[in-house]
Amino acid sequence: MRKIFVLGGDGFCGWPSALHLSNKGFDVTIIDNLSRRNIDNELGVMSLTPIATIQERIKAWEEISGKKIEFYNIDIAKEYTVFLDLILKKTPETIIHFAEQRAAPYSMKSSKHKRYTVDNNLNATNNVLCAIVDSGLDIHLVHLGTMGVYGYGTAGMKIPEGYLEVFMKTEDGKEVSSEILYPVNPGSIYHMTKTQDQLLFLYYNKNDKLKITDLHQGIVWGTHTAETKLDERLINRFDYDGDYGTVLNRFLMQAAIGYPLTVHGTGGQTRAFIHIQDSVKCIELAIKNPPKENEKVKIFNQATETHRVRDLANLISEMTGVEIQNVKNPRNEDAENELRVENKNFLELGLNPITLEKGLLKEVKEVAQKYTHRCNKEMIPCKSLWTSDTKTKVLI
Amino acid sequence: MRKIFVLGGDGFCGWPSALHLSNKGFDVTIIDNLSRRNIDNELGVMSLTPIATIQERIKAWEEISGKKIEFYNIDIAKEYTVFLDLILKKTPETIIHFAEQRAAPYSMKSSKHKRYTVDNNLNATNNVLCAIVDSGLDIHLVHLGTMGVYGYGTAGMKIPEGYLEVFMKTEDGKEVSSEILYPVNPGSIYHMTKTQDQLLFLYYNKNDKLKITDLHQGIVWGTHTAETKLDERLINRFDYDGDYGTVLNRFLMQAAIGYPLTVHGTGGQTRAFIHIQDSVKCIELAIKNPPKENEKVKIFNQATETHRVRDLANLISEMTGVEIQNVKNPRNEDAENELRVENKNFLELGLNPITLEKGLLKEVKEVAQKYTHRCNKEMIPCKSLWTSDTKTKVLI
Repeated sequence: MRKIFVLGGDGFCGWPSALHLSNKGFDVTIIDNLSRRNIDNELGVMSLTPIATIQERIKAWEEISGKKIEFYNIDIAKEYTVFLDLILKKTPETIIHFAEQRAAPYSMKSSKHKRYTVDNNLNATNNVLCAIVDSGLDIHLVHLGTMGVYGYGTAGMKIPEGYLEVFMKTEDGKEVSSEILYPVNPGSIYHMTKTQDQLLFLYYNKNDKLKITDLHQGIVWGTHTAETKLDERLINRFDYDGDYGTVLNRFLMQAAIGYPLTVHGTGGQTRAFIHIQDSVKCIELAIKNPPKENEKVKIFNQATETHRVRDLANLISEMTGVEIQNVKNPRNEDAENELRVENKNFLELGLNPITLEKGLLKEVKEVAQKYTHRCNKEMIPCKSLWTSDTKTKVLI
Repeated sequence: MRKIFVLGGDGFCGWPSALHLSNKGFDVTIIDNLSRRNIDNELGVMSLTPIATIQERIKAWEEISGKKIEFYNIDIAKEYTVFLDLILKKTPETIIHFAEQRAAPYSMKSSKHKRYTVDNNLNATNNVLCAIVDSGLDIHLVHLGTMGVYGYGTAGMKIPEGYLEVFMKTEDGKEVSSEILYPVNPGSIYHMTKTQDQLLFLYYNKNDKLKITDLHQGIVWGTHTAETKLDERLINRFDYDGDYGTVLNRFLMQAAIGYPLTVHGTGGQTRAFIHIQDSVKCIELAIKNPPKENEKVKIFNQATETHRVRDLANLISEMTGVEIQNVKNPRNEDAENELRVENKNFLELGLNPITLEKGLLKEVKEVAQKYTHRCNKEMIPCKSLWTSDTKTKVLI
């Protein structure tokens, strides 16, 4: 059995990925410091769905599938030696790295949150890379990045998968070409840490020949995968609050409880999306197709479609009769943007995308409806402000 | 009097900068956790020159010049609140940020050193930026970067000052142009942290409109400035060891004690250089010419000339009669490279460069000669290895 570490395997993407891989016959070890649950405590919010403890989750999975998942509570940003020892003991073939603070609004709440996000995310990623080098093992690292590293500008181009061919003029007027990492334009401290992660990957790949795949994921929607819906104890997180809730799932939850769909600004932001079932499938494809010896960092755009936020709001409003409410945008970003995204790498590996369709939207809404009694409406608005200027301007 | 914080003001560039600015009438406060002295303890090495304690240094400066410099021992990567409180109390106009681990070989000694460099440098820079935002003050941040962010490739271009105009092809065959940060190519973990610093500056400048100047400095040579030679208690550090010693000063020190000039590989590496007196002058020019409101990060190349390492070795060998010894290069880098560097920003601000000339080379050699008795020859070779491959290959 192929051994895999899932760092951050208790989170929204990590848990369904761990189950999917276990189901596919991988020997899965979850490493997680449960920071996401602790942040729920800090914010005074709970997942809309009643997630079981990690211990109950693993026990339930073994009862249902007959497969074992091991769990270690390790802070990989801080407990380097414990983490390295575990690698040496278990000798994983692949490490999947989800273990970062992943909410843009949370990263902008205060300087404490900015500093936590930088400290946690960069030390976590560097420690994983250092530990792979120290282990001397030929481990493939799969990292979850974000489409947000590219920014949401409108240069009139389709966003390529990580690398861009550019032309430059030399002093004597000649034109030379070069393939570079797509120039970054992060929109929050969180996104910035992912652009800095890219430089860690660039360096360790160049210096130590590490095999690395970086997945620039769009906004995930949906909550169930084939495995998480097998038993309520396996249910995935559903974040609806202003910090961790993401746009499409938030709209569906708001529709479920009859709360107006809160569109930031004009809703002219175009974003890339992927369903959680496709996300776990992509992780599997990435694991099964590691880079070759001496290959540069493999970068995939893990997104299946793009939509404008106001179009999504209109779609869900029509579907459910719930009205739309435009609120001031707390983010420091362009009101309107285009976005076209190359994603042929995953399509060529056999991904058959689940695109937005009413059946699946309905499923998410029904999940939200079932757990409406767990919703605290006060947690819905986004209260993080990007700049001190916006403090006086934002109405929620 | 204009108030200035010098973070890392006890170090090789920080101390002479603090003195120069104090001499020019600025009100200087040094903040330093003395990590550089502690690293000397760790490595079992001392500055070739007998540097006084920071307390003695400041006392001597007041005796000689009648000017006060204040000193606070604060770890800005860890003691955020103490640091922010000091900013609020003192309200500096400018903060100069030298407070990073700055040796490439040290950053490659072991995973512990890699992790320290990433943790210290990135948290320090992020904390400074956060604190400026939190303070609400209009503070100009001047940061010491490195020419090494550009890498030492040979695209046939003169390296511009931070930004590069590139052309890209859109899907419909049109050509669009864009100004981007020069694509990075770091050669060590240390250099990598400076490329990550650039993204911190990009983000805080965009989101919070911070005024930032980033100085990409070449290799500093020389040891005395006008102020440090006024009294032996003001003397600057002189690092000759394999971790912190830099190439030209190391050659001069080796020549002073009759130790063969150790050239790594063919010595075909071309590097950019600047004399310490020009370095402190550039800091002053940067302070006096802050970015305007809403201006992007100002990037200056702080270097006055480029030389091939073997040409420097030959020059000093001819000057002194000391032989050259070629040793295997511990670094994972190209054996030979060209380097042409744009530096007109500082020239336009009035910098009149001190270039390599025998008088000044002789001065450095004489300083080294004077303190030969403090030299531990065992510390001269560079023992840090860039990759596990080189472990079996490097002979020193």
